[in-house]
Amino acid sequence: MSHAPTPAPLSYDQAGVQYDLIDPLKVAAQRAAAATAVQLGKHGFGEVAASRGESAYVVDVGPFYLASIVECLGTKVLVADEMAQLTGRSWYAGIAQDTIAMAVNDLITVGATPLLAQAYWAAGGSAWFKDAARAQALVEGWQKACETCSIAWGGGETPALAGIVEADRIDLACGCTGLVNPKSRLTLGDKLQAGDAIVLLASSGIHANGLSLARKLVERLPEGYLTEIDPVGHPGLRYGEALLAPTALYSPVTEALAQAGIVPHYAANITGHGWRKLLRHPAALTYRIHTVPPVPPVLKFIAEQAGHDAREAYGTLNMGAGFALFVPADLAARTVEIAQAQGIAAWVAGAVEAGPKQLIVEPLDLRWGEDDLHLR
Amino acid sequence: MSHAPTPAPLSYDQAGVQYDLIDPLKVAAQRAAAATAVQLGKHGFGEVAASRGESAYVVDVGPFYLASIVECLGTKVLVADEMAQLTGRSWYAGIAQDTIAMAVNDLITVGATPLLAQAYWAAGGSAWFKDAARAQALVEGWQKACETCSIAWGGGETPALAGIVEADRIDLACGCTGLVNPKSRLTLGDKLQAGDAIVLLASSGIHANGLSLARKLVERLPEGYLTEIDPVGHPGLRYGEALLAPTALYSPVTEALAQAGIVPHYAANITGHGWRKLLRHPAALTYRIHTVPPVPPVLKFIAEQAGHDAREAYGTLNMGAGFALFVPADLAARTVEIAQAQGIAAWVAGAVEAGPKQLIVEPLDLRWGEDDLHLR
Repeated sequence: MSHAPTPAPLSYDQAGVQYDLIDPLKVAAQRAAAATAVQLGKHGFGEVAASRGESAYVVDVGPFYLASIVECLGTKVLVADEMAQLTGRSWYAGIAQDTIAMAVNDLITVGATPLLAQAYWAAGGSAWFKDAARAQALVEGWQKACETCSIAWGGGETPALAGIVEADRIDLACGCTGLVNPKSRLTLGDKLQAGDAIVLLASSGIHANGLSLARKLVERLPEGYLTEIDPVGHPGLRYGEALLAPTALYSPVTEALAQAGIVPHYAANITGHGWRKLLRHPAALTYRIHTVPPVPPVLKFIAEQAGHDAREAYGTLNMGAGFALFVPADLAARTVEIAQAQGIAAWVAGAVEAGPKQLIVEPLDLRWGEDDLHLR
Repeated sequence: MSHAPTPAPLSYDQAGVQYDLIDPLKVAAQRAAAATAVQLGKHGFGEVAASRGESAYVVDVGPFYLASIVECLGTKVLVADEMAQLTGRSWYAGIAQDTIAMAVNDLITVGATPLLAQAYWAAGGSAWFKDAARAQALVEGWQKACETCSIAWGGGETPALAGIVEADRIDLACGCTGLVNPKSRLTLGDKLQAGDAIVLLASSGIHANGLSLARKLVERLPEGYLTEIDPVGHPGLRYGEALLAPTALYSPVTEALAQAGIVPHYAANITGHGWRKLLRHPAALTYRIHTVPPVPPVLKFIAEQAGHDAREAYGTLNMGAGFALFVPADLAARTVEIAQAQGIAAWVAGAVEAGPKQLIVEPLDLRWGEDDLHLR
């Protein structure tokens, strides 16, 4: 198997996602949304203002906080569809887990226990549902992921949207609602401080961010999705299969931490923008990483094929770290043990320090400053 | 303006929605979802089992019930897109209200107070957001509808899904979460009984159900969406504009009822399947309608153009009744007054009687039995 030895670089913009066109709408929507917060007062409740711009919206309903989110899977289904054609089997059980992970892994960043998920499966037409094996894999994977996260599948919506969703495609999303209970579990970052440890949780692969780039690369590969990505280290591992490794579900870890009385000072789901998500918290603090998790073969492969240097790779993809927990330093080792007991590899990877807002990844000699991430 | 005087009949199946292909998946999904209910026990909570198969999922979290839903707008955006081309203005403020109404009007059927909405706006590519006037109309309409319903806009997701959503189209959905508080407001139909009155709330038009049929009819119209639908009664009212009347929001009515101490015995959102939704409750009861609301011109026009008789029209479209409240007979007149004080016309339209499961619409000499609606 031969790969192009020196591929021309491929950036995220070239892969078709133009954030500058979306962002003005996002800003307008965020302002309009913020203006509606006063509505909760009519019911005797109020929003937790610090959750605006965070990964889930939090409302104070008295005895506990209510957290909710709707998250989209994105374009990972296109890889599953291609691989189904190439391999004759369905990949939608994993896709179901990916979709739930997108919602659950965001919801838990605020300290919420996810309680229920709603399925949103919008197909390009009634014909999508004709492939019974695919539909059944989606159902079974959805159920299993709910059970892994100890959440109830509340129901959902399965519209056939010919003319909006493309023929024989499906747009998958998940609504997730949970409680921060007791309220002391709220994790919006007010406790984050110099001296805290940074614990990174292992990713299972690309998860569901960076797929536009990953799909674009396929055009360059001699055997497309069937290209072996690491013939020596992982013989037989094809690009498409490696991409479709289901996203890790982190709520068993955060729930186990709560059981053990550990409340993180902050948490970040590492999705789009890669490790720059470690800069998510608005405070002026320095994040110094001294230990870098092993890189999943598929991410190493993508970075090589796209011609990314370490800065571009870690600034775009999760590179082996799917979730970050910021905990008191004396609880860091215990946090790692608890994660590993849930089957998720983890590392005490660094520390929070007083200093300008920046992320320093010492082993890779990388630095990002506050101008490198604009989420709010 | 001339219309074909005797159009060939057009059924819902001909309009492209094949429910028989979707239903097996729905059944499998409902079973798998029901199996996850036990997960709530791990958190000390439990589902309200009677909410399975109802319009929103309800969980008992102790001091109150939590209700949540994700709902899709459907294909009404295609009408808005066509009309934008024909008229040069954006119709997305109304579309935003439609999307929120799909979720809110379902959520309130269980007795919940909607508290927050999440936006799901999945575009066919970044380019969708280039039309700043359209995007701004969507934002402003979303905010306004949230304010009408006294709910907070929590946030949302605005993915660009080239390859899944068609170019320059958008897939709109709304996640909505609320509380049944106090718990005595729970409306899952256990109190529904012979002697209750049926109060119907006026629809504003087609709402967001039946659009596949409505769009299919356009091909037959001499001036398409610009066809005048009622030159004598409503001169100048074009088909497209009439279709795009935003869906009525009924939560101000249910909240006002709660303020007045009126807890409906049951509620039904009249969406797909038209008036057959009045048969939603599983009990063996007879629903006798003696008063039929006026039919919005656009629905009258659709029924005529599609060659529907009254049975097909009322079994498919809302025909002027967008929501049904089943209340104790002595509270029916007060219920109407309260709805009208919120700007929603209402009628004491009929009564629940002991007898076989059936809906009888006396003024139109129509009857549906229990075999005419399968939702669970």
